[in-house]
Amino acid sequence: MKIHKKILLLGAGRSTASLIDYLVSHLESENWTLKIVERQLDAVFSKLKEHDLVTVSQTDITNETVRHQLISESDIVISMLPVAFHLQIIKDCISLRKPLVTASYITPEIEALTQSAKDAGVVIMKEVGVDPGIDHMSAMKLIDGIRGKGGQILLFESFTGGLIAPESDNNPWNYKFTWNPRNVVIAGQGGPAKFIQEGKYKYIPYNQLFRRTEYMEIEGFGKFEGIANRDSLRYRSVYGLDDIPTLYRGTLRRPGFSRAWDTFVKLGATDDSYDMENVEEMTHREFINSFLAYNEHDSVELKLMHYLNIPQDDPIMDKLKWLGIFERTPVGLSEGTPAQILQHILEKKWTLEKDDKDMLVMWHKIGWLGTDGSKKMMTSSMVAKGEDQVHTSMAKTVGLPVAIATKMILNGTIAEPGIHRPVTPEIYEPILKELVDYGIEFTEKEMTPVFYWSEPE
Amino acid sequence: MKIHKKILLLGAGRSTASLIDYLVSHLESENWTLKIVERQLDAVFSKLKEHDLVTVSQTDITNETVRHQLISESDIVISMLPVAFHLQIIKDCISLRKPLVTASYITPEIEALTQSAKDAGVVIMKEVGVDPGIDHMSAMKLIDGIRGKGGQILLFESFTGGLIAPESDNNPWNYKFTWNPRNVVIAGQGGPAKFIQEGKYKYIPYNQLFRRTEYMEIEGFGKFEGIANRDSLRYRSVYGLDDIPTLYRGTLRRPGFSRAWDTFVKLGATDDSYDMENVEEMTHREFINSFLAYNEHDSVELKLMHYLNIPQDDPIMDKLKWLGIFERTPVGLSEGTPAQILQHILEKKWTLEKDDKDMLVMWHKIGWLGTDGSKKMMTSSMVAKGEDQVHTSMAKTVGLPVAIATKMILNGTIAEPGIHRPVTPEIYEPILKELVDYGIEFTEKEMTPVFYWSEPE
Repeated sequence: MKIHKKILLLGAGRSTASLIDYLVSHLESENWTLKIVERQLDAVFSKLKEHDLVTVSQTDITNETVRHQLISESDIVISMLPVAFHLQIIKDCISLRKPLVTASYITPEIEALTQSAKDAGVVIMKEVGVDPGIDHMSAMKLIDGIRGKGGQILLFESFTGGLIAPESDNNPWNYKFTWNPRNVVIAGQGGPAKFIQEGKYKYIPYNQLFRRTEYMEIEGFGKFEGIANRDSLRYRSVYGLDDIPTLYRGTLRRPGFSRAWDTFVKLGATDDSYDMENVEEMTHREFINSFLAYNEHDSVELKLMHYLNIPQDDPIMDKLKWLGIFERTPVGLSEGTPAQILQHILEKKWTLEKDDKDMLVMWHKIGWLGTDGSKKMMTSSMVAKGEDQVHTSMAKTVGLPVAIATKMILNGTIAEPGIHRPVTPEIYEPILKELVDYGIEFTEKEMTPVFYWSEPE
Repeated sequence: MKIHKKILLLGAGRSTASLIDYLVSHLESENWTLKIVERQLDAVFSKLKEHDLVTVSQTDITNETVRHQLISESDIVISMLPVAFHLQIIKDCISLRKPLVTASYITPEIEALTQSAKDAGVVIMKEVGVDPGIDHMSAMKLIDGIRGKGGQILLFESFTGGLIAPESDNNPWNYKFTWNPRNVVIAGQGGPAKFIQEGKYKYIPYNQLFRRTEYMEIEGFGKFEGIANRDSLRYRSVYGLDDIPTLYRGTLRRPGFSRAWDTFVKLGATDDSYDMENVEEMTHREFINSFLAYNEHDSVELKLMHYLNIPQDDPIMDKLKWLGIFERTPVGLSEGTPAQILQHILEKKWTLEKDDKDMLVMWHKIGWLGTDGSKKMMTSSMVAKGEDQVHTSMAKTVGLPVAIATKMILNGTIAEPGIHRPVTPEIYEPILKELVDYGIEFTEKEMTPVFYWSEPE
């Protein structure tokens, strides 16, 4: 009789379809069983056909006894639960000596568990989805490749975006929600974007974030714009680039998105810190008007254009009008912060239609000094399209690296105890290689190097 | 032998000079003794000559036993301590059945003690300085006056500012720090300005706060501009104006201040949420440059003007240059948030000189419907100048109402137990009347009423 390895998957919500497909398709060849724990059974059965080696349960994992029992009975745990659960699950896995795989970030609290994971001999593989995940792996492949040849890295930029595929792109924003809408609405809040450029620290406050974008082009897919992320500086230590003069990470949108989105930032319509008054009776138009000065003559449109200095023939106005924000349509909420109300209004327009496909785009630029003293620069980019609304590009790019990492731990390829990101060649090479089979592939391209050496003092 | 009433004054820092003067000058006539507890003896003796009826101590009031002992031995407590102490001191005063007077705000935690103060029969008089304090008293005098004649109040606006007196006004900002500089630098952060205008709720985010100002003029003192405060709406219940269509409170500056200050807001230079890198080696110029995009050709000045769309001959540039922000002077701090660094740079220029006098300005506008159906409007304003750097207008306007309220509690004029603001005629009338003796006086002026009745929908 074969001894099966038991995989416990906690959470089967959004972005788990490709993960579940991969696990199920490898159950027999790899000799696994799969137990899925998810409160909402619908979420599971939309992604899964019945299978002898799969069990599904609605067990309440907030119950400690039950959770410990589940983990103890498994050989590996994959957590696709909301972020709030992860610290506890990791502690459980360390004390019960079970490996864990998850796509979520290593927080300082989790980092602090490194020694206990090592002492317990447990592999905790984190940040192994797409962003974080594929970004780390593809970045480190570039970086290690150049360093391996003696190059000194001078610049690294990295951008990722969840977008709509060109064939489903039918609105003036060139955007629809392909991922958690709330995160899109509140993106960039909570602190400035910090980065380093040619050795100078730079800080962009939220009120300017969407006006300080960078353009890039990907062959066959056209132009994109990049908005700075908050946390570029910490990647210096993650990627071993402590002395790099230029390091910049960001989020991709189609050109023109940010300049129009900035309207909502400047109005204060993305604020998530307070509840508005009279939401129950509010229309879209009244929502916008509440951020504009009182005036007994002028229209909401004119006040907005004047306030934010938008010419009336600016494409921003087409974008705003297309969203319906000037319409006398009831918002349809009984209460909410500006961000919640804006999200609700946007969801009426930016939701994927039945046949829409999403698209995950990643773009790196790296510059270095070669051993021959010449400066060089190249880009590396990846575009992954979704197949349908369940097998989205987001589900593929998040779920497949998690699945492959799970396989590598179960078959002993990843065995070093500790809390890991996929930043070493033993981990990222096999994963990147297997991802190519699923159409997730980077294209590298040399470019004319452009470096600046000093600002005027 | 006379029985003295014993006053315990906790804290003798900034803004307590006039309070101490008043108390000392009334010791004999009112039959009081005064005990001052202050860690820094210098702070006390700069304001006080030796006096038989005054004792000064450095007792550590964070020690509960000592604090209870001090309060038990007194007949009334005046707290001029930092805000963080007040909740505990109020709890102590309620349990030890001693009245308390302070200029600080009633927080929700303090409001929750109302019933226990009543049950204990203790008078807790709060918000009886200038802002809050004189603003409440002068507002309620106007409001009660109009309501007493049957008027229906339609509009109330109220602005206060701590400024520099015209004779000491010698810089292009028409401003110097006359009060806690930190509060000036971070003013307006932490949430939008909320108010109601002609029945419509309006919200101004921080990034627009200094661009949505209102102008007003005070005869003999020229023009001012008003910047919205965060908390206008809550004054509806405080002032009994629950159905008022227009209520707006704000802070006064001289015209042009806000448009120039907005430069720092837009740059992100007032952010207090993160520590900057390399502060030790930073110059003023590098501080500003860290908020501007990298460019190998352009100067910091040009980048700033271009970024924020400031014409080169705009008075904003004179103001910024006068502050020295483009100079290659070391900041002189070893670490700091942008707000802390900006404050440090500003303090080099905006600090009161030896003979400078400050000026406290308050301005109300009230509009109402008379019993004859006619609409009316009037303003009420007060300007108080300081005498010197100790007896500042801030010290007078904060300290004198506190002192007078203390007298009224000790002589039984204020006797109703509970947690109070000075919003009833029995309290505000005697205080406002006595403040006139100290040059703190309001001038009322009728004006042509300007009301708007509806915005276009």
